[in-house]
Amino acid sequence: MESRFKIVGQDVPRTDAEVKARGKALYTDDMKLPGMLHGQILRSPLAHARIKHIDTRRALGLPGVKAVITGQDTPKIKYGNWRLFPDTQDEYPLAVDKVRFIGDEVAAVAAIDRDTAEEAMELIEVEYEELPAVFDVDLSIKPGAPVIHDYCPTNISVNRKIKYGDVEKGFAESDYVREDIFNTHSVSHAYLEPCSALAQVDLDGRITLWTSTQVPYIVQCLLASTLNMRENDIRVIKPFVGGGFGGKMELRAWEFCAAFLARQTGCPVKFTLTREEEFITGRRRHPMKIYSKVGFRKDGTLVAKDLKIQLDGGAYNAMGPTATFLCGNFGAMLYRYPNYRFHGEHIYTNKPPASAMRGFGAPQSLYATEIQMNMAAEELGIDPIDLRLKNAQVSGDEIPDVATISSSGFIDCIKAVAEMSDWKEKRKSLPAGRGIGIGCYSFISGGVFNWFNTQYPFSAAEVRVFSDGTAHLLTMASDIGQGSDTVLKQILAEELGLKMGDIRMTSADTSMTPQADLGSWGSRVTLMAGNAVIDAAKKIKEPLFGAVSARFNLNVIHDIECVNGRVQSKSRPDYGLTFGEAVAMVQKANRGEPLVARGSYTPRGKGLVTPAFGFGAQVAEVDVDKETGLVEVKHMWTAHDCGTVINPRSVEGQLAGSIQMGLGYALSEQFVMDGGKTLNTNFVDYKMPTASDMPPSELFHVETYEPEGPMGAKEAGEGLASPTAPAISDAVYHATGYRCMDLPITPEKILRNLKKNK
Amino acid sequence: MESRFKIVGQDVPRTDAEVKARGKALYTDDMKLPGMLHGQILRSPLAHARIKHIDTRRALGLPGVKAVITGQDTPKIKYGNWRLFPDTQDEYPLAVDKVRFIGDEVAAVAAIDRDTAEEAMELIEVEYEELPAVFDVDLSIKPGAPVIHDYCPTNISVNRKIKYGDVEKGFAESDYVREDIFNTHSVSHAYLEPCSALAQVDLDGRITLWTSTQVPYIVQCLLASTLNMRENDIRVIKPFVGGGFGGKMELRAWEFCAAFLARQTGCPVKFTLTREEEFITGRRRHPMKIYSKVGFRKDGTLVAKDLKIQLDGGAYNAMGPTATFLCGNFGAMLYRYPNYRFHGEHIYTNKPPASAMRGFGAPQSLYATEIQMNMAAEELGIDPIDLRLKNAQVSGDEIPDVATISSSGFIDCIKAVAEMSDWKEKRKSLPAGRGIGIGCYSFISGGVFNWFNTQYPFSAAEVRVFSDGTAHLLTMASDIGQGSDTVLKQILAEELGLKMGDIRMTSADTSMTPQADLGSWGSRVTLMAGNAVIDAAKKIKEPLFGAVSARFNLNVIHDIECVNGRVQSKSRPDYGLTFGEAVAMVQKANRGEPLVARGSYTPRGKGLVTPAFGFGAQVAEVDVDKETGLVEVKHMWTAHDCGTVINPRSVEGQLAGSIQMGLGYALSEQFVMDGGKTLNTNFVDYKMPTASDMPPSELFHVETYEPEGPMGAKEAGEGLASPTAPAISDAVYHATGYRCMDLPITPEKILRNLKKNK
Repeated sequence: MESRFKIVGQDVPRTDAEVKARGKALYTDDMKLPGMLHGQILRSPLAHARIKHIDTRRALGLPGVKAVITGQDTPKIKYGNWRLFPDTQDEYPLAVDKVRFIGDEVAAVAAIDRDTAEEAMELIEVEYEELPAVFDVDLSIKPGAPVIHDYCPTNISVNRKIKYGDVEKGFAESDYVREDIFNTHSVSHAYLEPCSALAQVDLDGRITLWTSTQVPYIVQCLLASTLNMRENDIRVIKPFVGGGFGGKMELRAWEFCAAFLARQTGCPVKFTLTREEEFITGRRRHPMKIYSKVGFRKDGTLVAKDLKIQLDGGAYNAMGPTATFLCGNFGAMLYRYPNYRFHGEHIYTNKPPASAMRGFGAPQSLYATEIQMNMAAEELGIDPIDLRLKNAQVSGDEIPDVATISSSGFIDCIKAVAEMSDWKEKRKSLPAGRGIGIGCYSFISGGVFNWFNTQYPFSAAEVRVFSDGTAHLLTMASDIGQGSDTVLKQILAEELGLKMGDIRMTSADTSMTPQADLGSWGSRVTLMAGNAVIDAAKKIKEPLFGAVSARFNLNVIHDIECVNGRVQSKSRPDYGLTFGEAVAMVQKANRGEPLVARGSYTPRGKGLVTPAFGFGAQVAEVDVDKETGLVEVKHMWTAHDCGTVINPRSVEGQLAGSIQMGLGYALSEQFVMDGGKTLNTNFVDYKMPTASDMPPSELFHVETYEPEGPMGAKEAGEGLASPTAPAISDAVYHATGYRCMDLPITPEKILRNLKKNK
Repeated sequence: MESRFKIVGQDVPRTDAEVKARGKALYTDDMKLPGMLHGQILRSPLAHARIKHIDTRRALGLPGVKAVITGQDTPKIKYGNWRLFPDTQDEYPLAVDKVRFIGDEVAAVAAIDRDTAEEAMELIEVEYEELPAVFDVDLSIKPGAPVIHDYCPTNISVNRKIKYGDVEKGFAESDYVREDIFNTHSVSHAYLEPCSALAQVDLDGRITLWTSTQVPYIVQCLLASTLNMRENDIRVIKPFVGGGFGGKMELRAWEFCAAFLARQTGCPVKFTLTREEEFITGRRRHPMKIYSKVGFRKDGTLVAKDLKIQLDGGAYNAMGPTATFLCGNFGAMLYRYPNYRFHGEHIYTNKPPASAMRGFGAPQSLYATEIQMNMAAEELGIDPIDLRLKNAQVSGDEIPDVATISSSGFIDCIKAVAEMSDWKEKRKSLPAGRGIGIGCYSFISGGVFNWFNTQYPFSAAEVRVFSDGTAHLLTMASDIGQGSDTVLKQILAEELGLKMGDIRMTSADTSMTPQADLGSWGSRVTLMAGNAVIDAAKKIKEPLFGAVSARFNLNVIHDIECVNGRVQSKSRPDYGLTFGEAVAMVQKANRGEPLVARGSYTPRGKGLVTPAFGFGAQVAEVDVDKETGLVEVKHMWTAHDCGTVINPRSVEGQLAGSIQMGLGYALSEQFVMDGGKTLNTNFVDYKMPTASDMPPSELFHVETYEPEGPMGAKEAGEGLASPTAPAISDAVYHATGYRCMDLPITPEKILRNLKKNK
């Protein structure tokens, strides 16, 4: 079928590809300003302690040190992304009374260079009163456990319940019920660019902050509130960002400290974290303890699910409340559960805070869903593929008040991977030590929830067009390496009938781009910012169509289009003007006023969760060495439904990245902790798969048309982060009989199991 | 009378004062980019020559040299500000065929540092064929004179005629007619910041140019055209600018070369002129030869004026066509001339091009007007003050199809300076060697003419307001040191009832600020950009008024205002909301859309010249040393009418600067030329008055209300540049009997005259 699109659907090269490949992209740490100071943060060496006294005098006396601050010097305002529920805001930019994990921020220095700043660290004297600490959720919620935050004596900071249907009745009606407990572990985002922030203060007292962030608008608002300033006296600019994966979506201590110290010293101040700091103090994926009970009819039809998840949140809420909310929603996705109950608890421990990470509750929740599905299939004597086909969510499925699935290509995805991988044959005939397994996913295309309590549209765009045939797209949406700038340009080029080179773009500058955009997370940018771009483009086209239809006496409703750099009749393309000529005509009729339009998007009438769901299925084939327990992934087959594929090459990039992260999550990555202390703080000890570990893989696009998405598109960025671990895990079981209930699947666990089963 | 304004009319400190005083303002040359190259221009040592051959190979071979270009490497597109009349565009960015003055741009180099670039200059071999040159307008227009531009065999590039009434009939009806010839000389703008331009090219081929300019939009358009690019693939940003005075209002060679070389080398390239280059090649004020014939009735009533002006334009038109046009209009201003005729000729010579300079034809034209007025007064036996009062233009005066004077405080100005200076007494009783004299002016508040042929409004503004009670003003208007950013902020603060600190501003960035603004020249910014700001502010107020009046049931027509940070009832101020609350209310009712408005201004129905005229009068008292001929200015009294005074301190600053420039123009500044060669190229040899030369001065504001101006305001920046020279000249005559007909008034001329009269 010939596409109705010209640029959407094409392998348009990423607009940032060349500048990055040539090393010319400026990241925050590349920026230097005259008189710039270097900042450094002093961190707690204790997991739990009261700060009795901090003496900064010796540090301040060191030549080259310009300022030293502690929490006492700050306005002592707590922050957190859930502004709608201020109770959840539990973190100070710098610790005021207590430290709650090893790495907690205690003081900050600004000095003429990094060496001096580091030397000053040694000279700050902190007197602590050490407190008993707790590192395990089970112990943390026991009566008498150390209380980590005074406001929360139970250490359970968030309770989240979801319920529909009647679960007890459902189980009573089930022919087959099973209960399992899964444990998932914590991993690092391991983005290539460590966090960095540079602040400058003008003489009016206004602050400009360049920072490696996914959420310029959120940083603007929270920084203003912690500094006790007005939002618009803060300008946040996102330079090129080397990955975020959820780890850069909150205000962080160094952003606050850069701004505060710049104000105090009158000089620009930059903080850049070391990789070691990133591993010690960077946010990480939530470990979860997942209790799941499911009931089926004999024929495999799902009847009920009862899910209870305890999240190990670490020392602060961070994005944990959202994770708690979402993992309960993910538990109800993918398959039709007529009766469903969820209870999530977010629990404090004296560990580095967990927070948002690619998939955001789905990799954990869906690991349980998918493994349990495979376990049930075996016991029910149904092929896992068939069991999934029977229960798959399809277009039009509705969870009352929660979500409507306006498009689902899930069944086609399952069928596609089964066929691509030769599933039926391989599932039967593979030799010992070789196995094949399946994992599936569904994911959100951005959130409907507005816990940040923005007063603005969720996404916004401004489009300016010019008589030279060019357009300027302005949006606060943030390209953090995922390629959203390219995708948004494609959407605009398509809508206006222009070429990519006709469009210039300004993005992610809170002062220059239209209010607002909630940032890059939850796979929201393509759908939400894309819709805002289309909204603006339609407003641009209205007067252009009006002028050209008047000039050529065309039917403005159906006989006019923007295509090939022209505004012209569909039926008689010679009736028309170049795009630039049409713009000039509109301008001339309007006293020369430039032709500019603003568009926006906020999901409405789309339930509580998300405007649109992506789907997909993945099959992994593995080879397990019986001597060493090492798993080698031989092949991956993926079929996914992201609606209209706007940029196939970018989607392939998302897949490659997802498999890489999924491999690490399944097999090798984990934080090695000694109590609250992170022991593996570099890329030698933290085992992340490299390019040479990547298996061959194949991708199949199941194209649906999502009515709520821009040109039919929905998410492609995060859903793919979930299926890899369960697919590999199921393949390992197929190869060895070892069913992993606690990630990761290490050689030790496999060997132990093989011995046991001998 | 209590002012109806709260911020307008106040001595609000300039918003750039502190940052400049602290040395923290970044000018173009302060900017450094990674990998930046330094550019240098090779200039012609000959006044007139054909370029036979340029060999750049040795220069290119010098280590550290990255590129060498000549005119042959460029697209060879001529440019000039009069786009509406392409015939007047006579200059290539780099000379292609001929050089026409000493300093003409021949080649450019980009090298790793300035020293290397300078060394490379020596290695470029240019073979010239020298041509006969001409340096005097009389010789230039003689048959057989060297032809400077092939297209213009007469060397007269512009002929401009103005005529109304019947001049011959007027002279026939006059009781007293006199004819005089005046010669004025050339002076330098001598801005403190030499020209500087820095260009960077992104990988899409788009160019960003930071440049010390008065006209970002004009540079954008002309740079695009000379590079054969689309306007919007060029972004021009004006950093802080250290003065322009008309000398930075065209595209110049280094701006083109920076962009061209950045594109060629892929590296950022910066050019910064030396002071010597500025004196050799910088634009300068037009020398004019002014023939003026005026006829009066016995009672002093002006009947007719015949004015012929020859402008020595130097080697290129530059802004000469405008000067030719305007000096004819200035000749008809200030007084009522029932019959008027003007013929202006712009004449090429092989000297550095003259161009726009503060006053732009007025200091020359009005010098003749005012001196001749004083000569006539003496012969008619009427006091110069009384002669002026009799003929002064008043509110409502009309020159059909040319101009309507919608406000004039001229008569009050004349009366005020007469009283302040004790004119009647001093004119009679001063001792020998002491004298008092008068000079007056009228000036335009921006031009109605659109020779640049912009498709956009003449000025535009965007205002964004926020629920935190702040506003963001965006405009392409250019603060070049005159303080327009402060004035525009005052206007917005006044209109919205906010404080200065509530407003942040982005200006003069062609990519981010609304299209368009014609730049800072012709005293246009306060009136035109000010009107655009008010237009935008009114559009902001509309929905705010609507919401608040609905909420409190107020009469939206007359009972609501923005004042003191609130939107409230005039009669019951407690009925109202804070500005931020009102914004939030409007946003909430409009799906969170940010509240943004655009405004613009283009003069309509205001004749051919300007929307509004400023007026003023000045009296100087001097002491002339009979031994040395040195003139010491003892005191200056000034009364002026700029309509509503928006910022008194800024107007005083304009006055101080004007007196300083007027002193130099009258007494000490001039280019010493040896044929086409400028001999005084530094501040030791070029005699500019310093702070210690400044006389005490007093200023009186005659406030009128200009209906076309924002809040009643009109020009204050350039008119004041004209009266000082005639006032001093008249005072010197009063003191010594020496009437200066050819500026400047040097001690040599005074002594020669004193001897002659002995």
